[in-house]
Amino acid sequence: MKVAVVMGSISDRELGDRVLSTLRRFGVDVEMRVLSAHRTPYATLNFAEEAEEKGIEVIIAIAGKAAHLAGIIAGVTILPVIGLPAQSSTLDGLDSLLSVVQMPKGVPVATVGINGAENAGLLAVQILATKYPELRAEFKEYKLELSDEVSKMNNMLR
Amino acid sequence: MKVAVVMGSISDRELGDRVLSTLRRFGVDVEMRVLSAHRTPYATLNFAEEAEEKGIEVIIAIAGKAAHLAGIIAGVTILPVIGLPAQSSTLDGLDSLLSVVQMPKGVPVATVGINGAENAGLLAVQILATKYPELRAEFKEYKLELSDEVSKMNNMLR
Amino acid sequence: MKVAVVMGSISDRELGDRVLSTLRRFGVDVEMRVLSAHRTPYATLNFAEEAEEKGIEVIIAIAGKAAHLAGIIAGVTILPVIGLPAQSSTLDGLDSLLSVVQMPKGVPVATVGINGAENAGLLAVQILATKYPELRAEFKEYKLELSDEVSKMNNMLR
Amino acid sequence: MKVAVVMGSISDRELGDRVLSTLRRFGVDVEMRVLSAHRTPYATLNFAEEAEEKGIEVIIAIAGKAAHLAGIIAGVTILPVIGLPAQSSTLDGLDSLLSVVQMPKGVPVATVGINGAENAGLLAVQILATKYPELRAEFKEYKLELSDEVSKMNNMLR
Amino acid sequence: MKVAVVMGSISDRELGDRVLSTLRRFGVDVEMRVLSAHRTPYATLNFAEEAEEKGIEVIIAIAGKAAHLAGIIAGVTILPVIGLPAQSSTLDGLDSLLSVVQMPKGVPVATVGINGAENAGLLAVQILATKYPELRAEFKEYKLELSDEVSKMNNMLR
Amino acid sequence: MKVAVVMGSISDRELGDRVLSTLRRFGVDVEMRVLSAHRTPYATLNFAEEAEEKGIEVIIAIAGKAAHLAGIIAGVTILPVIGLPAQSSTLDGLDSLLSVVQMPKGVPVATVGINGAENAGLLAVQILATKYPELRAEFKEYKLELSDEVSKMNNMLR
Amino acid sequence: MKVAVVMGSISDRELGDRVLSTLRRFGVDVEMRVLSAHRTPYATLNFAEEAEEKGIEVIIAIAGKAAHLAGIIAGVTILPVIGLPAQSSTLDGLDSLLSVVQMPKGVPVATVGINGAENAGLLAVQILATKYPELRAEFKEYKLELSDEVSKMNNMLR
Amino acid sequence: MKVAVVMGSISDRELGDRVLSTLRRFGVDVEMRVLSAHRTPYATLNFAEEAEEKGIEVIIAIAGKAAHLAGIIAGVTILPVIGLPAQSSTLDGLDSLLSVVQMPKGVPVATVGINGAENAGLLAVQILATKYPELRAEFKEYKLELSDEVSKMNNMLR
Repeated sequence: MKVAVVMGSISDRELGDRVLSTLRRFGVDVEMRVLSAHRTPYATLNFAEEAEEKGIEVIIAIAGKAAHLAGIIAGVTILPVIGLPAQSSTLDGLDSLLSVVQMPKGVPVATVGINGAENAGLLAVQILATKYPELRAEFKEYKLELSDEVSKMNNMLR
Repeated sequence: MKVAVVMGSISDRELGDRVLSTLRRFGVDVEMRVLSAHRTPYATLNFAEEAEEKGIEVIIAIAGKAAHLAGIIAGVTILPVIGLPAQSSTLDGLDSLLSVVQMPKGVPVATVGINGAENAGLLAVQILATKYPELRAEFKEYKLELSDEVSKMNNMLR
Repeated sequence: MKVAVVMGSISDRELGDRVLSTLRRFGVDVEMRVLSAHRTPYATLNFAEEAEEKGIEVIIAIAGKAAHLAGIIAGVTILPVIGLPAQSSTLDGLDSLLSVVQMPKGVPVATVGINGAENAGLLAVQILATKYPELRAEFKEYKLELSDEVSKMNNMLR
Repeated sequence: MKVAVVMGSISDRELGDRVLSTLRRFGVDVEMRVLSAHRTPYATLNFAEEAEEKGIEVIIAIAGKAAHLAGIIAGVTILPVIGLPAQSSTLDGLDSLLSVVQMPKGVPVATVGINGAENAGLLAVQILATKYPELRAEFKEYKLELSDEVSKMNNMLR
Repeated sequence: MKVAVVMGSISDRELGDRVLSTLRRFGVDVEMRVLSAHRTPYATLNFAEEAEEKGIEVIIAIAGKAAHLAGIIAGVTILPVIGLPAQSSTLDGLDSLLSVVQMPKGVPVATVGINGAENAGLLAVQILATKYPELRAEFKEYKLELSDEVSKMNNMLR
Repeated sequence: MKVAVVMGSISDRELGDRVLSTLRRFGVDVEMRVLSAHRTPYATLNFAEEAEEKGIEVIIAIAGKAAHLAGIIAGVTILPVIGLPAQSSTLDGLDSLLSVVQMPKGVPVATVGINGAENAGLLAVQILATKYPELRAEFKEYKLELSDEVSKMNNMLR
Repeated sequence: MKVAVVMGSISDRELGDRVLSTLRRFGVDVEMRVLSAHRTPYATLNFAEEAEEKGIEVIIAIAGKAAHLAGIIAGVTILPVIGLPAQSSTLDGLDSLLSVVQMPKGVPVATVGINGAENAGLLAVQILATKYPELRAEFKEYKLELSDEVSKMNNMLR
Repeated sequence: MKVAVVMGSISDRELGDRVLSTLRRFGVDVEMRVLSAHRTPYATLNFAEEAEEKGIEVIIAIAGKAAHLAGIIAGVTILPVIGLPAQSSTLDGLDSLLSVVQMPKGVPVATVGINGAENAGLLAVQILATKYPELRAEFKEYKLELSDEVSKMNNMLR
């Protein structure tokens, strides 16, 4: 089980680390790197080209502003690509969200919410669970934790 | 290989049919039905609860306006849920998009663009291809068709 | 006279407490709890199902981002549901507002402004006053206080 | 059981008629009239002032663009005021929605979605049902119809 | 020469004071007060009704969120009403701007930019200058100062 | 009493004609012409420079998209400049509105709503009425007509 | 003098043709083709890589929705890249505009307005005129035509 | 090689300095000054009129809010004008962006992203490189640095 987490800049690292923790909790192998659709276009295409062969099964791409990373990778690979729009310094991430989600017909990007790092990781796990039954049990447990947290919140409220 | 396509209203049928054709092209079994998070909440939860058991592997939920269908289903099932925001009669689908994509931590929805019916279907195929290697070859062929279309467009241009 | 105040997460507590104070000022009984449309979907439906029977007369639901809590509860109960959109960490609450207010035909949510906690409480009081005449007098007094405040502001100005 | 439906202009009549049908279905008496916060400010205040005395229990105000009607009425009366933002000729109703829902502290307007005429009527019924138990049964029946409609839609789908 | 500056809440005072200084610089008499379209509707209408008689020649209304103050006053008086939208705590003043500027046919509000306090004052002076020729000369001097400031900025740049 | 109505393009003529009718109804002399801040910058500045001398008392500038016409004229003249943002072919006039209203400190533009042609004319009349008392009586009559129209609408409703 | 005009899909052809006519008017050689950042990523990179060598001096890229074409080309070539955002079927081109203009540091795209085909062509001519003095004279003539058009519009107005 | 950098106010200086450093790195001569379309309209037109003659080859205009500086200059000169929208105190720069980019047909402004100072400088260099071959080599080196930075970021990640 291997997921690649790529980010457009080191400034997205905090989001990347949150994706990483989420994936590791489920025992997923992670390859994390900086790749820029604009500054390293060839490296990006090579990465996308070779990902399947290297055993990567899902790709998570983090980028902000005119965020093209997820879309470009999705253009090359047949692996599912998850797009994580980063909040930008102006426009509050609306530019990132639209640049990632509004893909033309033929090349989908599975987009999660702005700065939704954990959700990007969880979605990758859900996709892998299609193939790896052991992840399903773990994900069910995770869902129990989610509802347990709500119980704890209710105790805090009292 | 089975995907469920659920829509909040019969008025989303045209989108649903476009998802259906896309999935069928790849030989994916489809169960399509109307389910409303607001008008049939119990049926929606039951559907989400039993989906895995019934052999469904991916769920595509289509809804517009305050579009809660994808999110509610994602709250129950551990299957990957793809959210397809429908263009609404006012606000041009921005309400649908934000209602689908901006999910809170713990419950991701894999969102595609507004009215991006084909992309919802293709994303489901890519997810299934993680498990079913035969789909990978077919998807690669599909990608070749995409680039062939561009060649044809260039011929039209001349 | 009983109002339920439910919130999607403990992080909405500050808003919840402001709703609570507003309601208490009018002598309204309040049941406050965390309920998540996504993390505790069954508890949410059960709550909505049983609310009327338990003597609850109005429900106030607080949530942010893709805010589905008010809508889901409104799908089940026949009680009036007030939606209070919480300002989100990105997009400034526009996502919350649209997710709460743009409900499809058949299932209204009485929406107040983003972070409008006091107004959510006051609206509940106005709804209850339809039935409980004693609240009307108190609300009229409240309105006098509102205009008195303006007088005080004018004194401050001088 | 009496509800007033006021609209800022005769151009909102189609919305008004849809509110009217919804209310009549539940046997609610309706007083419908044009009232403009800007063109007939005194008539508007008088209406709001006398509404309670005249037996009106809920007010529904329809307006578009810089839609002040609901807010101004809510400033005077203690009755619950439902705001129905009308889609405007430019900006698609976003101006109407924000002008109606973003009310300052102390004066709530129970806002429904843009052009959500039926929902405005239904919300009024739900508020009245707090006081009139007979409406509760009728509303439950209405909710059954809503879910029946979904069944019919499913039949259409097959 | 007399201008009234009214604001919806004491929280708009800082804007009000900036309007005041601007007007005083041109020797304009100012009456400043808090008036709320929602909390003191009658006082607001009375003020608007009597303004002309009291010698007021222009009214500047400051308000935020669902900002109805300028519009309501403009509905009553025939004096020119300048609307100054205040930046709101959510949505950055877009709600204020649209609530002030998008007035229906028949009742204009002369709107300046969000938080544009000085400009509201200056516009009032320009309107008064239509009648009071002495203000024209002063305004021309003000315009020279504006261009002198640019020269000073250029010196700072070097 | 003389008002200049300038528009950025002949495509704004319909708006211009509506401004014209409004002004003529009040007996105001009108000079109407096409002037472009971008295509005829010198003519625009000359016009703004000489307007006062030519007896023009208020300028109404109509423009769409990146609408600079009102702002540029306001930079030169001391006359009050009314900005009328025209609905644009994309973005529904939001670009026009923001380009006209968000003027920097020192150079206000009295902005009316998108496509609000009649309001632009009426605002000019209100400004002129500061100086010409005869216009005040006429404007009061106009306001009566506005409220009469509401009465007529009520008759239509019955 | 050679400019490449590339478009993401044949559906952008009408925009492309308007760019073409603009460029031809100035005697600029044009190479026009369909290239998709997502469907033909390698062809896109190859095109960008070889453009300079082939004598192309400016590249104009037309695309809509999550419009990545201009940005990806700009990542490879050192030639100036002009981005022309196409109005999209939903969101009115706001997605296209933000996807094109909000480029990260290091890789600019010279963006023109939504559907601003002529302006894309004219900007290319202005850039070429930096090098080819003969174009400057022609562009000055074009500017005279622009102001002549305004004169003609004024004749039409009378 | 000479580029003019003009800004609407000294408050844009930080952006101006970032443009300056970028241009100097490539050995480009820079003339930097404050020029306001509104406060110094004649100086602005004179500057635009004489720019070509003074040897300026590209103009970069920085402005915020209703940002007219770039457009006005582009109306006069035939030189390529780069518009740099500054983030404004309200609306996060959306007003600046739309005011700069949405230029009417005939007068393009080459717009970069909000606060994209470096990109404005780089775009000017790319335009100059059309004429000055020595800049092309330097720009290629710059592009290598961009990709080297990504390598360094990858080292930081490990």
